[in-house]
Amino acid sequence: MREAFQEELESIHTTLVKMGSIVAESMAAATKALLEPNLELAQKVIKEDDTIDDMQHELDARTMMIIARQSPVAGDLRTLVTSLRMSADLERMGDMAHHVAKLARMRYPNCAVPDELRDIVINMNRVAVNIIEKTTKSIDTRNTTMALELEKDDDEMDKLHRRLFEILMDDKWQYGTEVAIDMTLLGRYYERCADHAVSVGRRVYYMVNGEYNTAN
Amino acid sequence: MREAFQEELESIHTTLVKMGSIVAESMAAATKALLEPNLELAQKVIKEDDTIDDMQHELDARTMMIIARQSPVAGDLRTLVTSLRMSADLERMGDMAHHVAKLARMRYPNCAVPDELRDIVINMNRVAVNIIEKTTKSIDTRNTTMALELEKDDDEMDKLHRRLFEILMDDKWQYGTEVAIDMTLLGRYYERCADHAVSVGRRVYYMVNGEYNTAN
Repeated sequence: MREAFQEELESIHTTLVKMGSIVAESMAAATKALLEPNLELAQKVIKEDDTIDDMQHELDARTMMIIARQSPVAGDLRTLVTSLRMSADLERMGDMAHHVAKLARMRYPNCAVPDELRDIVINMNRVAVNIIEKTTKSIDTRNTTMALELEKDDDEMDKLHRRLFEILMDDKWQYGTEVAIDMTLLGRYYERCADHAVSVGRRVYYMVNGEYNTAN
Repeated sequence: MREAFQEELESIHTTLVKMGSIVAESMAAATKALLEPNLELAQKVIKEDDTIDDMQHELDARTMMIIARQSPVAGDLRTLVTSLRMSADLERMGDMAHHVAKLARMRYPNCAVPDELRDIVINMNRVAVNIIEKTTKSIDTRNTTMALELEKDDDEMDKLHRRLFEILMDDKWQYGTEVAIDMTLLGRYYERCADHAVSVGRRVYYMVNGEYNTAN
């Protein structure tokens, strides 16, 4: 029984890592679809979001069943409850990739991103994908140092986000309000996605240590 | 022991309802602060968000402790796990009120909302506060009919949200990009807040019936 329980915990862990990988791929693909622009790829990401949602529902049902059947305590219970939280964050991160892909589709065959903002979008995507991958790795290895580094990585995202707003609000902005709105929302998708990843990192720390990090 | 357990469940229930009430008040106050504009009130809402965050942390710790100590099954376990989800949604709804208040503060002593958008902001706030109050009531009474109505109420929000974008993207828009960006984000705060409330409604349904509603 104990062994079966450990296998179940392991399988939840594997699913969370898998969800993280899919989210990272989805975000990278969504940005690619946005910048090329590539309708087929955008559709693929939009469809993939259902996979992530299904994984979350399935994972949560499984987690609850384990809690009900095994009455876990202390560290195991913490792992299980934290898993519920992580899966919710990962699902929201998937939604952000989904939003990026929907923007690509909505403006197709045009590219939603004006040339002037191409670099900043490439960078926001890079930082987002890095953070998602690092988050996934910190879940996988239960590495709390890595999990805490995410807060610093997120500072780079915040810088890019501020820079984006500066460009949008500059008097020289020449692409009109519709593009400004698209880019405001787009910036928020990357930024929110990174925020959720940082939140997952905090939960890794909590899962391992039984308390939240209060050092920063 | 059984009686103490029921008391603990009851106290979680009371806290969730209390959180919902505070969120509704915060959103109403944040919008008031935004439209007057009123710096003192904005500061109050910003501070109040810490209260909501603290309530969530305390509630979650309590819920986990109950799960650990009492090993609840079936309906009780479902109520407890659903409570964890609801508290996360309610906390995010509080964040949205917090964002509205921060916009009020950022643009003070100016009013962030141009005259032309005043009505639509008043309406988005009205719909958001109504939805939050109805959600809170559906938690309180475990009324699933009410919980399911929320989806329809949210249609009104979506309509207002689309109308807002139409105005922002109209050629006659005269307030520049900065205001358009502010209003894009503001619209999203109300709309996201309502979305989270709808999600809480779905969880009320799940809590009562043990499955999600698939009728719509």
